[in-house]
Amino acid sequence: MSQIIHPIDLILKKRAGEELSTPEIQFFVQSVVANGEQKLNPSAYRPAGSTITDAQIGSFLMAVFQKGLSLRELADLTNAMRYSGETFDATPLHSFTVDKHSTGGVGDKSSLLIAPTVAAAGLELSPSISVPMISGRSLGHTGGTLDKLETIPGFDTQLSLARMTEVLLETHAALVGQTPRLVPADRILYAMRDHTGTVESPFLICASIMSKKLAEDIRGLVLDVKVGSGAFMPTYELSKFLAELMVSTGELAGTRTTALLTTMDEPLGRFSGNWVEVWECIDIMKGVRHPMSADLIELSNALSGWMLFLAGKSATPEAGAKLADEILRSGAAYKSWLQIVAAHKGDISIFTDPAAFHKPKATRVLKASRAGYLSSMNCKQVGWAVQRLGAGRTKPGEPVSAHAGIESHAKLGTKLAAGDQIFTLFSEDAALLDEPYRMLEETVQIADAPPQLQPLVREIVTKDTLPKK
Amino acid sequence: MSQIIHPIDLILKKRAGEELSTPEIQFFVQSVVANGEQKLNPSAYRPAGSTITDAQIGSFLMAVFQKGLSLRELADLTNAMRYSGETFDATPLHSFTVDKHSTGGVGDKSSLLIAPTVAAAGLELSPSISVPMISGRSLGHTGGTLDKLETIPGFDTQLSLARMTEVLLETHAALVGQTPRLVPADRILYAMRDHTGTVESPFLICASIMSKKLAEDIRGLVLDVKVGSGAFMPTYELSKFLAELMVSTGELAGTRTTALLTTMDEPLGRFSGNWVEVWECIDIMKGVRHPMSADLIELSNALSGWMLFLAGKSATPEAGAKLADEILRSGAAYKSWLQIVAAHKGDISIFTDPAAFHKPKATRVLKASRAGYLSSMNCKQVGWAVQRLGAGRTKPGEPVSAHAGIESHAKLGTKLAAGDQIFTLFSEDAALLDEPYRMLEETVQIADAPPQLQPLVREIVTKDTLPKK
Repeated sequence: MSQIIHPIDLILKKRAGEELSTPEIQFFVQSVVANGEQKLNPSAYRPAGSTITDAQIGSFLMAVFQKGLSLRELADLTNAMRYSGETFDATPLHSFTVDKHSTGGVGDKSSLLIAPTVAAAGLELSPSISVPMISGRSLGHTGGTLDKLETIPGFDTQLSLARMTEVLLETHAALVGQTPRLVPADRILYAMRDHTGTVESPFLICASIMSKKLAEDIRGLVLDVKVGSGAFMPTYELSKFLAELMVSTGELAGTRTTALLTTMDEPLGRFSGNWVEVWECIDIMKGVRHPMSADLIELSNALSGWMLFLAGKSATPEAGAKLADEILRSGAAYKSWLQIVAAHKGDISIFTDPAAFHKPKATRVLKASRAGYLSSMNCKQVGWAVQRLGAGRTKPGEPVSAHAGIESHAKLGTKLAAGDQIFTLFSEDAALLDEPYRMLEETVQIADAPPQLQPLVREIVTKDTLPKK
Repeated sequence: MSQIIHPIDLILKKRAGEELSTPEIQFFVQSVVANGEQKLNPSAYRPAGSTITDAQIGSFLMAVFQKGLSLRELADLTNAMRYSGETFDATPLHSFTVDKHSTGGVGDKSSLLIAPTVAAAGLELSPSISVPMISGRSLGHTGGTLDKLETIPGFDTQLSLARMTEVLLETHAALVGQTPRLVPADRILYAMRDHTGTVESPFLICASIMSKKLAEDIRGLVLDVKVGSGAFMPTYELSKFLAELMVSTGELAGTRTTALLTTMDEPLGRFSGNWVEVWECIDIMKGVRHPMSADLIELSNALSGWMLFLAGKSATPEAGAKLADEILRSGAAYKSWLQIVAAHKGDISIFTDPAAFHKPKATRVLKASRAGYLSSMNCKQVGWAVQRLGAGRTKPGEPVSAHAGIESHAKLGTKLAAGDQIFTLFSEDAALLDEPYRMLEETVQIADAPPQLQPLVREIVTKDTLPKK
């Protein structure tokens, strides 16, 4: 006989900072899902005793925000969310499944390089590696992998889990969006957090990210946790704390998990937008390495390297990064990319001349107002400028422009002459250029002395570096 | 032009422990009332921009629970709640209005003595004093003045504010329940707090109590804040903190406010229940002072004394207590009581022989199991025993028994022989005696040495004793 659990008891315990039991946390997640389904469909079946109200969910989320969760509670919450709906089942793949996840950046298209790189390694090595990558969309100042992929004519990101399995068996990577029935608890809780002022809890952020990633049935996970002016988390310490929570949660779920803390102080690579980011990746996979893409390639190889290391394909992460770079340079990644895109019904013919497919209606160039070193910018503001050009959205569901975005002509530390190009802005609507231009102009700083720059990879968090209890 | 306030902004500020502005707190209360009215009546008018959701109210209440309120915020919250519906207007009385409020006890019928005592003083002195006493009902382990009054045949506690004014002009006291439109914000917020685990916040408790008391348009207020095993607040320190919050809030609203911290370690007076408590007061007002009523008379006089002092009718609270005792002894209070009851349509003929009106169907006596001193009891458990006998309720709206209750035959410190009576239990249903009997038997302790007893009035909190900021 299981004891009856009441929502109020969970609230009273968490309010006092006490630890909830595993059944209590499972009850909370199940009740939240039942409450959410009830609202969508008032006649829906509601399990007995699962009644929780919106007010109780709000109160509980704020108590968690204030008091936090133990690592055990966090693993339980993540697990209960992970199994709140359907999950991907990797068993039929007979493959080591591995994925990467980024906390969100500007110009960060590394997934488009990493998936084909690791998939190419997966094709050639035994046992194979597969990348069941469930990605998100652009929101706020950050871009989204799905929006970039969907600029490829025909590319279908909305695969069923069954079709996802077929694509993975064929190409060793799938690049898809969340299905409606995958991790419904996160969709409901995210909406609740959004309007109850409980979004920024590192515990709730961890559970949200990790429940979705672990629902991919992955055996390895590499997390790219951004730090710097373009990162979601406001401080280095909070980014590191989140990284530690996610590594702990992944490991407690039996998934080898590593987090790289990486610098996001300026847009990554040459382009930020949607199609322009795909174009940049095609160039790289074809062997064309634009100088502005150097940081992107470095980051992608570092992340791919860790994925290959976790999968047992390299002796060290560094050797994995070297292998990833070889796969990119050899054309194997591009071959894999063409197969992946074709499996998603994408039109690969446009890759022949990706520059030709870039059709902004209006452009403007921001130039250096004086000579000096490009010394700083608020990368979040740059991301918002990209959004305002039409490439992003402020609310889920809004359309995005395929051809809006910016090109970076200089990186932090670049020595500029007055009049040198810094950014080219693209939009499908000339009226949308003014505000982003002013935003970029305002945030870009030129100084007489070169800036102190941070390395791209700041720190690596693994199971072994976690603080001891 | 007023700035638009969003619920999420209030939550984010309070979440971080920041101070909300007066308009922000007013917005919160107005939104809560609009939200509550919307639920009762979906077509109700809803002021523009007042939209707040249940989840947001729950989250905000938990943030307040965790972070507290400044004294200024608390005064603003109390004020906004006070004016959330109709309020009593004392202007037509041309009288100094004063009331008392207790945080709730067992056997505490002091209101029934205080109202006629102070009203009697109000009749005789100029300018007059009036007691517009809006009381509550029994809940949980505590009794309620309205339930006691309603055992008097015909007694009408549900007066309109207009009728309340007439009664006050005539008798200088009114003993009534909250009207449906008085302080609706408290009714809604209390229900929200109850199910979101945010009841025990001293700030929210203060706002709830003080908004209702200040809605009586009183110029003086004496608070009886219970401490000890029968008090709502779990520690002396928390009771004192609540007392300080209430005194500060009252004074900031321009009402002279004093709090007495008083001991609630055993039932007050001779009887605990409903009619039996009225009976005990009638005896006292008729000049019959049962030895078991000594603590009740002491407390009533102390509270009445402070009320008379705040109203300027005595030079000191002690002189006020002496005056109150004289009014009780002289029969003036009883005369006032008869007028007050008659004005509420109560049948005063039953006061001729109050013992005869006590008609329990079943009684049982708890006797001392051994010789020794009555050394302790959990007074909350005694209160719950009274409730289980039928005198109280666990949920608002439940009916209560007029004739259930207990009689105390001994006070803490009494030297008992084995077999001496300690409590007599009364109920209208013999089947209801067993559990309360066991509860009382379990909690009553007899020891060889006399207990260390606390004085009835432990400490007095006034504007002058408040901690300096």
